Amino acid sequence: MAQQPIAGGPMRVIGRRGPNIDAVERVTGRAKYTGDIDLPGMLVAKVMRSPHAHARIARIDTARAEALPGVRAVITHRDAPKVMIWGHRQYALNDRVRFKGEAVAAVAAVDVDTAERAVTLIDVQYEPLPFVLDPEEALKPGAPQLFEDGNLEGPPRMLTRGDVEQGLRESDKVIERVYHCPTMWSGGMEPRASVAQWEGDRLTLWASTQSPFRVHGSLAAMFNIPDSNVRIIASYIGGGFGTKSAPHTDEALAALLARRARLPVKLQYSREEEILDSNTRFETRMYVRIGVKQDMSLHALDVKAYINQGAYHTRLGGLGNQATHLYRTPHVRTEQLRVHTNVPNTGPTRGVGDPQETFGIESAIDEIAIEMGWDPLAFRLKNIKRTGDPIARGGSGTEDGRLVTQVLDRCIEDGASRIQWSRRNAVAGSVPGAKARGIGVACTERGGGGGLGGASVKVNLDGSAMVFYSSTDIGTGSRTTLAMIAAETLGMPLTMFRSVSGDTEIAPYDGGSQGNRTLQGTGRAVEAAARECLKQILESARPLLDNAAPDDLEMQDSVIRVKSQPARSVKLAEVMQRRGRSAVGIGNTVMPQTGIEVERTSAAHFVEVEVDRETGKVRILRYVAAHDVGRPVNVTIVENQIEGGTIQGLALTQGEEMRFDGRTGACLTGSFIDLKPPTMLDFDPRLIEAVIVPNEGSVGPYGAKGLGENPCHPGMAAVANAIYNAIGVRLREVPFTRAVILRALSGARPANSATV
Amino acid sequence: MAQQPIAGGPMRVIGRRGPNIDAVERVTGRAKYTGDIDLPGMLVAKVMRSPHAHARIARIDTARAEALPGVRAVITHRDAPKVMIWGHRQYALNDRVRFKGEAVAAVAAVDVDTAERAVTLIDVQYEPLPFVLDPEEALKPGAPQLFEDGNLEGPPRMLTRGDVEQGLRESDKVIERVYHCPTMWSGGMEPRASVAQWEGDRLTLWASTQSPFRVHGSLAAMFNIPDSNVRIIASYIGGGFGTKSAPHTDEALAALLARRARLPVKLQYSREEEILDSNTRFETRMYVRIGVKQDMSLHALDVKAYINQGAYHTRLGGLGNQATHLYRTPHVRTEQLRVHTNVPNTGPTRGVGDPQETFGIESAIDEIAIEMGWDPLAFRLKNIKRTGDPIARGGSGTEDGRLVTQVLDRCIEDGASRIQWSRRNAVAGSVPGAKARGIGVACTERGGGGGLGGASVKVNLDGSAMVFYSSTDIGTGSRTTLAMIAAETLGMPLTMFRSVSGDTEIAPYDGGSQGNRTLQGTGRAVEAAARECLKQILESARPLLDNAAPDDLEMQDSVIRVKSQPARSVKLAEVMQRRGRSAVGIGNTVMPQTGIEVERTSAAHFVEVEVDRETGKVRILRYVAAHDVGRPVNVTIVENQIEGGTIQGLALTQGEEMRFDGRTGACLTGSFIDLKPPTMLDFDPRLIEAVIVPNEGSVGPYGAKGLGENPCHPGMAAVANAIYNAIGVRLREVPFTRAVILRALSGARPANSATV
Repeated sequence: MAQQPIAGGPMRVIGRRGPNIDAVERVTGRAKYTGDIDLPGMLVAKVMRSPHAHARIARIDTARAEALPGVRAVITHRDAPKVMIWGHRQYALNDRVRFKGEAVAAVAAVDVDTAERAVTLIDVQYEPLPFVLDPEEALKPGAPQLFEDGNLEGPPRMLTRGDVEQGLRESDKVIERVYHCPTMWSGGMEPRASVAQWEGDRLTLWASTQSPFRVHGSLAAMFNIPDSNVRIIASYIGGGFGTKSAPHTDEALAALLARRARLPVKLQYSREEEILDSNTRFETRMYVRIGVKQDMSLHALDVKAYINQGAYHTRLGGLGNQATHLYRTPHVRTEQLRVHTNVPNTGPTRGVGDPQETFGIESAIDEIAIEMGWDPLAFRLKNIKRTGDPIARGGSGTEDGRLVTQVLDRCIEDGASRIQWSRRNAVAGSVPGAKARGIGVACTERGGGGGLGGASVKVNLDGSAMVFYSSTDIGTGSRTTLAMIAAETLGMPLTMFRSVSGDTEIAPYDGGSQGNRTLQGTGRAVEAAARECLKQILESARPLLDNAAPDDLEMQDSVIRVKSQPARSVKLAEVMQRRGRSAVGIGNTVMPQTGIEVERTSAAHFVEVEVDRETGKVRILRYVAAHDVGRPVNVTIVENQIEGGTIQGLALTQGEEMRFDGRTGACLTGSFIDLKPPTMLDFDPRLIEAVIVPNEGSVGPYGAKGLGENPCHPGMAAVANAIYNAIGVRLREVPFTRAVILRALSGARPANSATV
Repeated sequence: MAQQPIAGGPMRVIGRRGPNIDAVERVTGRAKYTGDIDLPGMLVAKVMRSPHAHARIARIDTARAEALPGVRAVITHRDAPKVMIWGHRQYALNDRVRFKGEAVAAVAAVDVDTAERAVTLIDVQYEPLPFVLDPEEALKPGAPQLFEDGNLEGPPRMLTRGDVEQGLRESDKVIERVYHCPTMWSGGMEPRASVAQWEGDRLTLWASTQSPFRVHGSLAAMFNIPDSNVRIIASYIGGGFGTKSAPHTDEALAALLARRARLPVKLQYSREEEILDSNTRFETRMYVRIGVKQDMSLHALDVKAYINQGAYHTRLGGLGNQATHLYRTPHVRTEQLRVHTNVPNTGPTRGVGDPQETFGIESAIDEIAIEMGWDPLAFRLKNIKRTGDPIARGGSGTEDGRLVTQVLDRCIEDGASRIQWSRRNAVAGSVPGAKARGIGVACTERGGGGGLGGASVKVNLDGSAMVFYSSTDIGTGSRTTLAMIAAETLGMPLTMFRSVSGDTEIAPYDGGSQGNRTLQGTGRAVEAAARECLKQILESARPLLDNAAPDDLEMQDSVIRVKSQPARSVKLAEVMQRRGRSAVGIGNTVMPQTGIEVERTSAAHFVEVEVDRETGKVRILRYVAAHDVGRPVNVTIVENQIEGGTIQGLALTQGEEMRFDGRTGACLTGSFIDLKPPTMLDFDPRLIEAVIVPNEGSVGPYGAKGLGENPCHPGMAAVANAIYNAIGVRLREVPFTRAVILRALSGARPANSATV
């Protein structure tokens, strides 16, 4: 893909630093989240959840609950339309439950107490079934089956080139390892919330979703009503991280209850429900074989991954093939087995499977380099894919594309220089004493910006302007960055803009806020919409400027000038007043697919840790995150995204593991106390150095690339590699808690790990 | 203007009969009017009103009101921004009151009782001023002055051609008459209502308005906030008739109170407030001199009109120059004096000044024809303007344009045939007995469709579709007719459409619902938006149809066909699913101004009355309303509009007069009991025959013309002429109550009438 030409000379808005334009609303509490919605007569909903990990519902009697004064609606699987929730293998309510905590019934009542009491009055007779929690166990003969067609979700996803067995035979050195990441919590601070209101056969649903149009399509199908009769509004979102990127049970339950009760219904999950019944990060067990030649070339890579999808799973998921996208390797095979078990729903969460996969691949790369006596950085630099290298255009299949404008080498070099890579221990674990320091690295990459982008831009009569998009700002700053793109394109100050997000009735169809796509995919649509607006404005300005040719007009700082006679100018507000109506442009875009060219965005993370051999505590001393972001639209937001994503990646090293009771299937980590998400005291963002590696070669608007996912990928691998460098202990299971470190230091062999 | 070419062969949707697409919502009570809006924490507002017709506010003390528990905000003129309400000469609250009932202060409280009690606790000290109620009195030396620059609003509006004095001298016969219409109520069944909600410096206002974007601009200016920060939502409106076409005090008061209270505020007028403080129909006194030649030609016409604008007045108003647009006349002068007096606000109401003017002109035409012994119909047919005749392009100035596609002659001929004109009394009042029948006629005309049209059309993934427009459906059926235009253009069934109206955030700028413009002006925008949608859809269909040329594709009944191979087709829903996103088109249009050509729309109304000489009762026996509507979009709606407008015109003959107490300025008709608006028992719509006179030559969408105003124009004149024909008594003052008829029959001379 050709480098995006930058129109209009130097940037005036893009590339600056600055706060989010909605910062004041957010920090003053004025921003309205779905939980803040209050409608007249609104009922409160509560969900009854299964006490069994796997069971048939033999009988369900709601008579006592319905008789309770103040109860307005009770629904069970009998009331759920037999239309599956978007991308899931489940209805809103099912006659068979597949994880402990699955919704069995729901109640809408005049207040919380009544709703909660009503839930206890529903009589359910379960027929418990055997259950399975481990994905490998679930594939064994005789394992409990969750679905009639078995526990495997579709055929294995394969990506192959060369002959991996032959490659491994040809290699001078092969190691074989197993890496494991458990099911991990990834939700936002805001638990799921839905408010449903029916007016006749028209549904308005306020939802905490990243993808209003997916919820829109899902509910229209479920209720068999025209798309025109569904409106989804998702204004402020308290974090999504992918868990809110697909339609979920809660939206359907709120809508079903509201229809039954003929009153608006709010369903807001408790923290426990949010942990238990969200689309959380899936467990991944990777069997990795890696072979190298003496010339330091990576020769063969074989990955077999078991993905524990849990009971149900959105159709968005799997590993992103970091294994094959990062390094030139003649012989590759990756195989992904997506397996249903009786743990709760999983789904895409920040990076989808890439943090897990990066942990395996970047650990294995480290391991074999060290076994060979090579500098792991030199080994990477020799083997990373660079501009022009072959790459698979899809997530699987063969390497049919060619990589463009890759700057991973510069990310590595810049990061290494800042962390002072040469300070690392030449021999891992060789420094004596209670506290040992070590440095580690991990690389990653990803695509982005895909799907259909849609937005509109309006310039009002007073010269103020608005950006409308149906995706949501889940904390990524898209309200701000999209307005900056419009401001740059139009030639107006950012202060003139307001962004309205997340309303399917106001804004055009857009693919939603996920997968590194909003800035790049929606941003292109904003740019197109703003260009259309500008065209209309310049046309309206012509009569005020001697009918100058449109090409001879430009707008800067809301003043329209004749380029060939710069003294001739008119203010935007004057043009708009005479025009008499707002200028509106719609942008509908797709990411261009130019032949075989593939654009990816990459990063290298470096971390220095201090491991306390006596307590097992791992302290982050310094962290350098060097990223290709294309052209940064707002430097402050880019840095915040890198910092936030990095911390989320690091969090996975220390907690957020979801643990289940093998005897009952119960989740043992249903609260923040058990789940131990890190706080600012655990990871000081000031220790993180966000590095923007210049690369203007992007198909995104003004060369921008998306950055939502990547910062979360490398943390686990970089820290594992740094711990190894500090104390000489290789950790192949996440998280790296004190207990794990101490056990490893004592010489106990971690479960599941293997060496050839 | 060239006749609009009708694309795509015979019409499939347009021209049919059918109910309004929102009929079920309206009649089941599901339709949400502004008064139905209920927001959490919402306060109720009440207005304190002046007991004086004219006074200065010397002192105003709100302390006792503010101290009342439950009161959340009290505002007076001190709190009103010094920015006038759109088009008015008043602030939201003023330190001087100019009519009895003008708002002096407003209160927001937790309930109605508290708000009403608080109003009584506001202490106001007035300095009463002399007042004047009659517009001619108000222009005399020494009259009380309402404004510093006097009582005359701007210079007189003049339209002249030839030399009217010379023309009168040249005439073979001249008569001189005075016609009078009082201030008349014209409101809808729904009193004004506003709900204001602030979020920070952003205002959302639900309003009962015909012109959301006028309210939008007015409030943005008043609060000095960007246009982007104001959203007006006007969904269902219970009648507007022009009184809601301009911003009014109530919207500003609700917004001011809500800002002060930091809570949402609803202000809903009582019936009395709605009668008293609306923009009602202005009193008009017309001095008419008319001269004819023996050859039956109209030779000179002189009109001097005093328009009683009341205390304040929107800038929309005056007479439409029926006097000069209807008839060829070599010598014409019209002069309009717009005068402020201490009666309540007036404004444009159905037909603006044209019903009043038509009463004067069409009575005078009748009078002179009869004086000359001519058939008034033959006299009209000889003198009416026809296609190609000169006409003034603007409302005043010279006759610089040329009339196109005029079918008034056919309206007259068709109507005369249906009413059986030859049955009329050859000699007026010549039939003896208690009950006398008579037949009368009156003609009228008007422009329409002007201003800026804006709309958008969306076709969803399932093939359902939506029409968005920021104007409102005030009962005219625009939700239906605009959807029909989109359905016709796209080639889809009407049942697939939903219309969303009245939201400034969702829909593009549009001129609003008034002045015969929605169907024609907004309709053109809908047609343009639908064409853009169709283009996108056909483009998306091409890959499914052998990449047929776009010109070779067409959609009918939601199936896209290859015109050259009709067997090749694909369903719309299939195309949309593959397209993956909705198709959205925006239409921004202006009515074309093609040189000097002027399009008007005309009508002739015929009525047969029976006058009871003993009781004075006038019964309508039959009414024929023959209208040029261009091409009818929905025949049922056209007929309903003609019937509704006709009844509203007839209502003015029997009641709805606003009377004022000359000693105090108080309105004596503040309730329906005093105001006597007619009911279905007074005018049976089955007696009205709505006649659609074919005329497809319109610049409107598919040749349609607007019809909101005209049906209301001729009623007063036609009935006055019919009464004369029945009993030989000429009535020159509205209304024609029983008392007036009996007094006239007794020989008493009506006030203000004069003969040469």
